Amino acid sequence: MLRSKDLLGIKELTPEEIYHVLETAYGFKDVIMRDMKKVPPLRGKTVVSLFFEPSTRTRTSFALAAKRLSADSVNFSVSTSSVVKGETIQDTALSIQALGADFVIIRHGSSGVPHHLSKVLDISVINAGDGANEHPTQALLDLFTIQSHKKEIKGLNVAIIGDIAHSRVAKSNIYGLTKLGANVRAICPPTLMPAELDKLGIEVFHSIDEGIKDADVVMTLRLQLERQTKGFLPSLREYFNLYGLTSKRLKLARKDAIVMHPGPMNRGVEISSDVADGPQSVILEQVTNGIAVRMAVLYLLSGVKQ
Amino acid sequence: MLRSKDLLGIKELTPEEIYHVLETAYGFKDVIMRDMKKVPPLRGKTVVSLFFEPSTRTRTSFALAAKRLSADSVNFSVSTSSVVKGETIQDTALSIQALGADFVIIRHGSSGVPHHLSKVLDISVINAGDGANEHPTQALLDLFTIQSHKKEIKGLNVAIIGDIAHSRVAKSNIYGLTKLGANVRAICPPTLMPAELDKLGIEVFHSIDEGIKDADVVMTLRLQLERQTKGFLPSLREYFNLYGLTSKRLKLARKDAIVMHPGPMNRGVEISSDVADGPQSVILEQVTNGIAVRMAVLYLLSGVKQ
Amino acid sequence: MLRSKDLLGIKELTPEEIYHVLETAYGFKDVIMRDMKKVPPLRGKTVVSLFFEPSTRTRTSFALAAKRLSADSVNFSVSTSSVVKGETIQDTALSIQALGADFVIIRHGSSGVPHHLSKVLDISVINAGDGANEHPTQALLDLFTIQSHKKEIKGLNVAIIGDIAHSRVAKSNIYGLTKLGANVRAICPPTLMPAELDKLGIEVFHSIDEGIKDADVVMTLRLQLERQTKGFLPSLREYFNLYGLTSKRLKLARKDAIVMHPGPMNRGVEISSDVADGPQSVILEQVTNGIAVRMAVLYLLSGVKQ
Repeated sequence: MLRSKDLLGIKELTPEEIYHVLETAYGFKDVIMRDMKKVPPLRGKTVVSLFFEPSTRTRTSFALAAKRLSADSVNFSVSTSSVVKGETIQDTALSIQALGADFVIIRHGSSGVPHHLSKVLDISVINAGDGANEHPTQALLDLFTIQSHKKEIKGLNVAIIGDIAHSRVAKSNIYGLTKLGANVRAICPPTLMPAELDKLGIEVFHSIDEGIKDADVVMTLRLQLERQTKGFLPSLREYFNLYGLTSKRLKLARKDAIVMHPGPMNRGVEISSDVADGPQSVILEQVTNGIAVRMAVLYLLSGVKQ
Repeated sequence: MLRSKDLLGIKELTPEEIYHVLETAYGFKDVIMRDMKKVPPLRGKTVVSLFFEPSTRTRTSFALAAKRLSADSVNFSVSTSSVVKGETIQDTALSIQALGADFVIIRHGSSGVPHHLSKVLDISVINAGDGANEHPTQALLDLFTIQSHKKEIKGLNVAIIGDIAHSRVAKSNIYGLTKLGANVRAICPPTLMPAELDKLGIEVFHSIDEGIKDADVVMTLRLQLERQTKGFLPSLREYFNLYGLTSKRLKLARKDAIVMHPGPMNRGVEISSDVADGPQSVILEQVTNGIAVRMAVLYLLSGVKQ
Repeated sequence: MLRSKDLLGIKELTPEEIYHVLETAYGFKDVIMRDMKKVPPLRGKTVVSLFFEPSTRTRTSFALAAKRLSADSVNFSVSTSSVVKGETIQDTALSIQALGADFVIIRHGSSGVPHHLSKVLDISVINAGDGANEHPTQALLDLFTIQSHKKEIKGLNVAIIGDIAHSRVAKSNIYGLTKLGANVRAICPPTLMPAELDKLGIEVFHSIDEGIKDADVVMTLRLQLERQTKGFLPSLREYFNLYGLTSKRLKLARKDAIVMHPGPMNRGVEISSDVADGPQSVILEQVTNGIAVRMAVLYLLSGVKQ
């Protein structure tokens, strides 16, 4: 069982809780691979998404996870909402609760917004990305994907390449991977490496060729062109030359290494097309696993007895 | 039973019809307070919302009311719709009917649009706000909320504070409250008071301290910053000083007075935070009751026998 | 049965396949005319719409068709999606497939996009309009509407009036009508007539009075003001004078001719209001039939045994 009514971050989870989510997700993966993908446990429950940053993919993934569990899913559209009219986020969230929502899925540009709402609301708050802090369901689906290929996460060498400093995906994965005993290597330009990551017991590399050596898992991050402060990078071409994942570089990793990307990909920027579409890529599997993992999270937080 | 297939305004309802909606809503309130919030009466029916003004809250409330009754709910998005392409509102509404909708929920910036469509369409038209005319489901949920706290609406002193001239919420509430025998007091700046309200048998106050005295219900209105013609108000600060509902002013009302607001709130403009969050506030209850009342309206208009 | 997993265009269908869709649609028309409009065959299936051009009407029609078959329907909103972030259309479509969609309904401004995706995806691709190429479900619903009024399509005189050069609706109808043996007449300004249509065995008229003579079906096209290159037309008034369908002109057609329009209409531009609302107009029937035909397409492509 999970101890909290909310999923705020991987930081807040114990290794046992993480494993419990992954195990539950295996059952739901079976469900969604069937022809008839629906099961009844959340019938009569309501999932509301409240996204202050654009995202179709994550929002749709949660919506489908909710529907597969027979819950109703409603998108609280922020662009046309009361938020525009000057209402506080807290009042918006309290209204969503008063409308009868059982879950609110929130994405916001500032770190800590879900944590604040978690204290204010009685219903379950699920963090779908808060600033540069965490994106816990992405890390859970990544861990699920790694586990289904590598059986044991403990002892794996996992190389994460890219804009670590601005990436909530990286942050959540680092928390999760280190909690489960993997060796994490952060490969990034010196300008995109936040100082505090050293404390997490991860290795830092500025050369992709060194960092990728003997990796079991190679995870490239999306270059968040829209978020990144200008001046950190010389050009996209240069970034690709220095940090792009190519098939040549991938050969330095273990032969059976898997390649991951949270999507959406900038082909030719952080990853070459032959790698993205190659036999080691599990990128589309990650998308499918995202549904299973989000079903598990909704199911476990709903307090339904297993 | 309701006499009309449509809900256009409170003006068109008899006191008996209003009470019938409220009674029906009590049953649905029980439903939505359960863990399993769904009931089957509108299965196979379709509710389409057609909003020409932004509103997430009212639209979501109708969508959830429809889903709880097992109806399908579709949002006919105006910004990307044929309306942009030059189609008339009437043609859009006729198309929605031809698509098989059983209900169309309409919000429009001009008064009387729902009344016009009501004559053109065979299906039920529900007014979700037309210009400065009416917002009948808001008044019904307000009456429901008052009744559940005060038992008898007849004889209550209800103070409505704010931009009465531009408020369809105020207009619908005034119709409803006077029909049910409450004493309504309109408290507003002289510049925001339309002349014709005098005829409705309500008292008009320009001082909040006088108007709030011995009130059983204090209803503050949202200051519609975006709609209001410039020049009516000196500043938001001054508005708060003259018409903001503070705990000091609230003490002038009856001890057991309830505080209402249709949302979304401008804290520190029309209401202070301590009042909004205080023990007399029923503002979030209003949101919950909105679902029950809209379920009742959909159910009764659907002609399903009780 | 249909031979393909996809519906890309009428060009790709045999006459037998077209008739099979129409026959199946008759059964679903009965369903949607009932009070309880839902049937269970696609329960547990997911329909995702991916529209790169604005359209509420077609998207809503598909969404309702999906819901009436008990499928889940999700709109993959392009404006806020990964596409904006630089992802390729192919990657977006592959992600939609990985999310568990069974059908993707695509509209795109460029011809051939659905055909490309059809090769990349294992799931069913339904073309909801690709550039000036095809809009097959519109033609199917038009054929269904003609057949339900005229019994036999073979031998009918069908006049299509308007911007043939830019109209995927016209293109799909021409393919369908000629395959089923109708005599198609294209009535259009010389500047809006593409050369290659001659090869399809249709007659071309530049005078509406000549082309409409003895027509059994008069189909006016929407003047796509937003798509059309400037300079083809002198003015909307002049267009109406030369090509607008008026009751006077309609008298030149057969007495029992039906009048069709794909919607949304520009009243007073391509059609006069008395004709649009007159007894020969089947324009709103087309909208209703669109649901039945799209249900048939989804049902047949799903491979469910009849």
